[in-house]
Amino acid sequence: MSFPDSQQAAMRADEGVTRVLAHYLVASRAGDLPEKVRIHGICSFVNWLGCAVGGSGHPAVDMAYSALAPFAGAEQASLLGRNTRTDIMTAALLNGIASHVFDYDDTHLKTVIHPAGPVASAIMALSEFRGISGAEFIHALILGIETECRIGNAVYPDHYDIGWHITGTAGVFGAAAAAGKLLGLDEQQMVWALGLAASQPVGLREMFGTMTKSFHPGRAAQNGLTAALLAAKGYTSSEQGIEAKRGWANVTSTHRNLAEITEGLGERHESLLNTFKPFACGIVIHPVIDGCLQLRDEHSLQAADIDGIELRVHPLVLELTGKRTPKTGLDGKFSVYHSAAVALIQGRAGEAQYSNAAVQDEQIMALRDRVSAVIDPALAADAAHIVIRLHNGRRLEIFVEHAIGSAARPMTERDLNNKFNDLVVPIVGQDQAAALLRACWDIESCRNMAELSAMTQGERR
Amino acid sequence: MSFPDSQQAAMRADEGVTRVLAHYLVASRAGDLPEKVRIHGICSFVNWLGCAVGGSGHPAVDMAYSALAPFAGAEQASLLGRNTRTDIMTAALLNGIASHVFDYDDTHLKTVIHPAGPVASAIMALSEFRGISGAEFIHALILGIETECRIGNAVYPDHYDIGWHITGTAGVFGAAAAAGKLLGLDEQQMVWALGLAASQPVGLREMFGTMTKSFHPGRAAQNGLTAALLAAKGYTSSEQGIEAKRGWANVTSTHRNLAEITEGLGERHESLLNTFKPFACGIVIHPVIDGCLQLRDEHSLQAADIDGIELRVHPLVLELTGKRTPKTGLDGKFSVYHSAAVALIQGRAGEAQYSNAAVQDEQIMALRDRVSAVIDPALAADAAHIVIRLHNGRRLEIFVEHAIGSAARPMTERDLNNKFNDLVVPIVGQDQAAALLRACWDIESCRNMAELSAMTQGERR
Repeated sequence: MSFPDSQQAAMRADEGVTRVLAHYLVASRAGDLPEKVRIHGICSFVNWLGCAVGGSGHPAVDMAYSALAPFAGAEQASLLGRNTRTDIMTAALLNGIASHVFDYDDTHLKTVIHPAGPVASAIMALSEFRGISGAEFIHALILGIETECRIGNAVYPDHYDIGWHITGTAGVFGAAAAAGKLLGLDEQQMVWALGLAASQPVGLREMFGTMTKSFHPGRAAQNGLTAALLAAKGYTSSEQGIEAKRGWANVTSTHRNLAEITEGLGERHESLLNTFKPFACGIVIHPVIDGCLQLRDEHSLQAADIDGIELRVHPLVLELTGKRTPKTGLDGKFSVYHSAAVALIQGRAGEAQYSNAAVQDEQIMALRDRVSAVIDPALAADAAHIVIRLHNGRRLEIFVEHAIGSAARPMTERDLNNKFNDLVVPIVGQDQAAALLRACWDIESCRNMAELSAMTQGERR
Repeated sequence: MSFPDSQQAAMRADEGVTRVLAHYLVASRAGDLPEKVRIHGICSFVNWLGCAVGGSGHPAVDMAYSALAPFAGAEQASLLGRNTRTDIMTAALLNGIASHVFDYDDTHLKTVIHPAGPVASAIMALSEFRGISGAEFIHALILGIETECRIGNAVYPDHYDIGWHITGTAGVFGAAAAAGKLLGLDEQQMVWALGLAASQPVGLREMFGTMTKSFHPGRAAQNGLTAALLAAKGYTSSEQGIEAKRGWANVTSTHRNLAEITEGLGERHESLLNTFKPFACGIVIHPVIDGCLQLRDEHSLQAADIDGIELRVHPLVLELTGKRTPKTGLDGKFSVYHSAAVALIQGRAGEAQYSNAAVQDEQIMALRDRVSAVIDPALAADAAHIVIRLHNGRRLEIFVEHAIGSAARPMTERDLNNKFNDLVVPIVGQDQAAALLRACWDIESCRNMAELSAMTQGERR
């Protein structure tokens, strides 16, 4: 790539972005964070832990565990939702896979990063191993989320359009920052940790629809953890891993605005913009599901009444979730057609609605084939327009301006608790799930994260 | 990125590159390889092992080991040159760092990939653990080198110009292919392993001059090994990890020629183009060092006689190794000025010539300041023109058309043995080094690579 003069000047202005960020991370004290930022961090944790426990029995986790267990180390950290402990590196990978495998975790809507996966997977394992307090954990989690979302802002959408799965590529910085904070890195070590992170981006969008998508946040967690551990020992890296001419931002994106990383650090909190998914599929389909559920409830719709469903959606919906004839449950998450049909028939869009059985159900398949979709570039990403034509000639219509779970219509604490229980009760039972949920909300009084981790253990080896 | 029609058509023609490569890797039998290819593979192994043993005591290896040992698994594989065994993942990383830390390993000149590091580091550990024979090992090593060099050819130079350290980004495919071969993957599993590799590129050129550069081949080895192990258990990935619109080649390079990957597979052997470094620094400086040594020998030059040294070099020389005032031994490897000066004074350019002491030596610094260099885009990468002006008015001149160690002037077996001994004798002593070297050349009769690995152990923990 060549750099015109105007860009050269901009690059000079970007000097020191890595160090400014490192300085902020090292200097930050938990007491500096406003209460609403801390509470939102706890919401991110509750949502992430529910997803990780809920996904812990997925075949992807089983396969990865059986592949890697022969090489794992001592029992240092829990595999969430399972009756197993392993070394912190292996735990970070497997918990990261589990937390994303249902595509049900959190989303920073400006960048479509799923922030908690890479960060929490890394520091949950580290905190259990080192007996870190819940307050320190939440502080590091928030700093990690802030780091990856700001770095994501600096390169979105170009970086994502090229084909990077931004959760894995930006996530490694979040994991390195949070793990580095808990390891007590000094500023120079934090600069190196960010440099080591810059050299380990994970994830191509080409992998969407395969198990490798979930591998990305898990591997990003491991990479960030590795970066922080190496830096703590003095392993050197670039001073300008993010902003250098051949640093991460220039190499992985065609455009960048590095001021996004440093402007208002400690004042404007990007972590507040993390949102939680009410439905177990790609966020871009959520306005459609929300609208279908609203029409279903309002009109007591039955599949047999429906002649056709016409969707008008944001362009990304068909780009990311345009599978017309999904074959598996995982495929179904990338099908707006299946999602609309199953929501109308079953009145939900949780994990059960994306099972192989649901995707292969004849009634759902029949309705799916009556869904049509057109893109409308004028629509916001959290909006959708839906028309349902009935056999009796009626025409039902809804415009969803902001889907449930969006920044404008966030899930309530009750919504989060219901989602948590849906995911966790099947794994650890009602009583343990209730105790775990209480402990999560009360995490800032937890003196040792090993105690909270112990409460996540299930039956499965 | 958007794709014009002509490129769309080219992309359609590229369909199936990943599968064609996987098919070749799975179907290949050791007996299919011509003898000269097998012998060249053994040369690559001898050169790599010498570098890895020689580098085993470097602070970067010590730091990485102390950072990661607490999380390592059972004693499955040797840390080369040390008195330690660890799990195969940790061994792959540390041996990969050790093998590259002197910048003294091999080079595929068409792409500046250092091929053996990612591949051999992965499969040396795996082979020791699983008791693989030497013949199988060499076969897999050659396939891995073939894979990464062909993938490198497909995207070089654009991929490298953008800022990727191609050894780490292409190397992960080589490691996955070789490990996958030894694990006996079927074609579908090999496709997935290559897809998992595609999602884990390692290495920015921004890290050159820091310890993170050596981390790249080590991490690439781990990533490829992980990819193969996961795929062996059925962990799914893209069917077109290399060639898809959002696959590795399109995401990490502005231009690509995917036919390089598949054309003549099994007939044209890219692995034959692997070369070995006679000098312990970046390959681009080698023509200069070669010429300086030739002039020194021919004219019995003394530093005190020299008024000035004028270099005319390939543009990459100043781009990669243009440090005027290196401060450390590692810096010195990125300084054509230091390299010319130390070669003229000490008559060598081995690891000792890139110590901190050598770089800070007053006589060498004084001569270094009398070296000037200009670029000449007409020069080949393995050529250089040197003029030395003496105080007595004489003007010595040499044009190096092909540096020693280039494809046109390869190192002999004797050169390789001398280099091996220089590196290995200080670590394991004369007798063990001699026995190890014999075993390396005779690797195809080794029934169990654990026996050869045991011979690499040194004193250092």
